[in-house]
Formats: sequence, structure tokens, C-alpha cells
Amino acid sequence: MGVLTIGIAGGTGSGKTTITKRIMERFGDDVSVINHDNYYKAHNEMTYEERSQLNYDHPDAFDTDLMIRDLQMLKCGEEVHSPVYDFTTHNRSQETKLIRPAKVIIVEGILILADPQLCQEMDIRVFVDTDADVRILRRIVRDVNKRGRTLESVVDQYLTTVKPMHEAFVEPSKKNAHIIIPEGGRNQVALDMLMERIKAQLSAE
Amino acid sequence: MGVLTIGIAGGTGSGKTTITKRIMERFGDDVSVINHDNYYKAHNEMTYEERSQLNYDHPDAFDTDLMIRDLQMLKCGEEVHSPVYDFTTHNRSQETKLIRPAKVIIVEGILILADPQLCQEMDIRVFVDTDADVRILRRIVRDVNKRGRTLESVVDQYLTTVKPMHEAFVEPSKKNAHIIIPEGGRNQVALDMLMERIKAQLSAE
Repeated sequence: MGVLTIGIAGGTGSGKTTITKRIMERFGDDVSVINHDNYYKAHNEMTYEERSQLNYDHPDAFDTDLMIRDLQMLKCGEEVHSPVYDFTTHNRSQETKLIRPAKVIIVEGILILADPQLCQEMDIRVFVDTDADVRILRRIVRDVNKRGRTLESVVDQYLTTVKPMHEAFVEPSKKNAHIIIPEGGRNQVALDMLMERIKAQLSAE
Repeated sequence: MGVLTIGIAGGTGSGKTTITKRIMERFGDDVSVINHDNYYKAHNEMTYEERSQLNYDHPDAFDTDLMIRDLQMLKCGEEVHSPVYDFTTHNRSQETKLIRPAKVIIVEGILILADPQLCQEMDIRVFVDTDADVRILRRIVRDVNKRGRTLESVVDQYLTTVKPMHEAFVEPSKKNAHIIIPEGGRNQVALDMLMERIKAQLSAE
């Protein structure tokens, strides 16, 4: 049956990471995750100031070609050393992250369904669909409480790039989904269906 | 594990019936279907003229309480004789339809997710989501080619009741879905996931 590749997309705060976490808790090493967030382009030619002005919510911010190559290697059963992005320096870190091949590979990211070539690499494309107000509330709580950012900076970033990029690229990419899951990690019924599909894949020889 | 009840909702022409058909083709008697369409209210007190003026796209057109009772009986392992609606006389027919209890019961209908009590009876609530333009095209082809209706009458009915009722009741009921399937019966990936879930139910003891 080969490798089953599941894409999990959705806007900021939609609950997609919770879904990935739940799947990992249940299946452990039988499932590997490759995260678009780690494939932000390296910009060693720029200053910190210049890099911090980049639009990180646009599809062009990502080195998606590199991610596709890594994903193809994983599907061929090869280990991958994915880049790691350092959000404090706004640049690719010196470190890499080992991703082991597995029978089920999860591709996670806000914009993964916005790239047609990347879409073709996924057997099941899931879009986690949560209302914009719920999503921004989650983002505020996360960024203010856990990342020590000011409310003002979160609101400003949301209105200037996150929201317009969501409407321009994330929302339309929903069209490329095979299934749409409302309310992310709290939707146990949808989660169970995904789990059942993964279980069937893992038990097939 | 008891009985698994799957609701399949979605606007006219969304492809929900195709999904139900595919499931029946695969699982046969292991799955039973109960259809909201058969539970239009009887109106023996009205003339044919009066009945043909009723709004059949409004939730109040259905005897949903009766359907809930029948569904509960099916879930308890009892046979049900559902009403049958005769669209030529716009009234409940003299016939009934035998529905046998099964381990998996599909509840199908445009408005089944619009009723909170009916929602509670379903373990998995699926909404088949297809663009309005694609849906009306399918409806035109079906009603004009297969049901011998004039294009004018289909357009008129669509604009006066189908579309406003869709926007008032069907579209908001999507909020009650656990999973949303774009493009109905042509979405093989989503269909496979549903099939996998049903298979797991049928093989569990």
C-alpha cells in the first residue's frame, strides 16, 4: 500500500496543530511530520531589520520546492534533515531536524494547499476550518501569554498581513481539500475518522 | 459498539445521494437508509392546489418528529415502515417503505442538520458542500431531462424558494457538521474515509 501522505492545512489558530498532536500521541513513530513552517526561505543576504520586514504570510516566503523534494525522499523511504527556522533571528537556523520515513506522513502548514505541486504529493488533503474570530482569539492568547508579545503588535500584524494573506491565499486553498474539518482538535468525530483511516493504512501490508 | 448513525446533508444537487448510493453498492444490507424526503407532512385537509403552493424547502414542511421516532426504533433494532411521499399528488402516499435495522444507518436529506434534536441522533454528521452554480446546473439537468419539467419552472422555483431557503436554513446548518465534503460523489478520497469508518464499525463486535 506504500506511504499515505496526509496534508493538514488551515488558518492561524484553526486547530491544525492539535490534530497533528493527537495523531502523534496515538501512533507515535508510525507517523512522521513535515512542517512547512520550517521551510521559510533563508535570507542570509539581508540584515535582521530587512528580514523582520518580510511578509511571512505570503506563499513566496516559503522554499516549497525544497519541502517537496524532502517529502518525496521521505515517501521513498529515505531519512530527511529538514531545515529549522529560527523565529528570533528571522532566519534559517544552523540546526537541522531529522525526519524519519514512515508509513504515514503528515504535511502540516497554513499554506500547504495553496501550492498545486505540493497538493499533488498528498493523498488526503484536510483543511481545518474555524471561524476567523475564534482563530484570532486563540492567536492572541498564544502570542501574548506564551510568546510574550504585546497585544498591539499581534493586532497590528494580524490586520496588516495575516488577515489579507488568509483571504488571498489560505481561504481559496480550501478548494483543494478533500475533507474540511470544522473546529480542529475539538472535533472528536472527525479526528476519529482520520485515526481510523491511518489505522487501516498501518495494518495493511 | 451498537449502531453507527451517519447523517448526509447538503443542498440540492450537492451530490449527497451519490455518496449514499456508493455506500449502498459497497455494503448492501449491512447499511440502511432513512430519507427525510419521505417525511414531508401529510396534508389531507388541503386541496391539490393548496398543497402545490406549500413551501417544500422550509424545515416546517417535514414531519421531523416522526422521522426521529422511526430512527430511534431502527437504532433499537426494530423494523420501521416509513411513509412514502408522492410528489405527483403532493401528499403522503398510501404506501409505506420497509426499513430494516442495521449496524449502520444513513440519514439523508437536505435539511437534516437544521434540526437540533435530529442532529443529536447522528454519530457522524456529514455536509456535502458544492458550489451553488454547480448545484443548480445538476438540478436543471435532472429536472428538465429526467423529470420532464420546463426550464422556466425550474428556474422560477429555484429563485423563489430553493435558493432563499438554502441560504436561510441549509447553509447555516453546515455549522452542525463534523466533516464537510466538497463535491459529493466525485470526491473519492472523502468517500474512502467514510467507507473505512463504516468498515471498522461493521467488523467490530
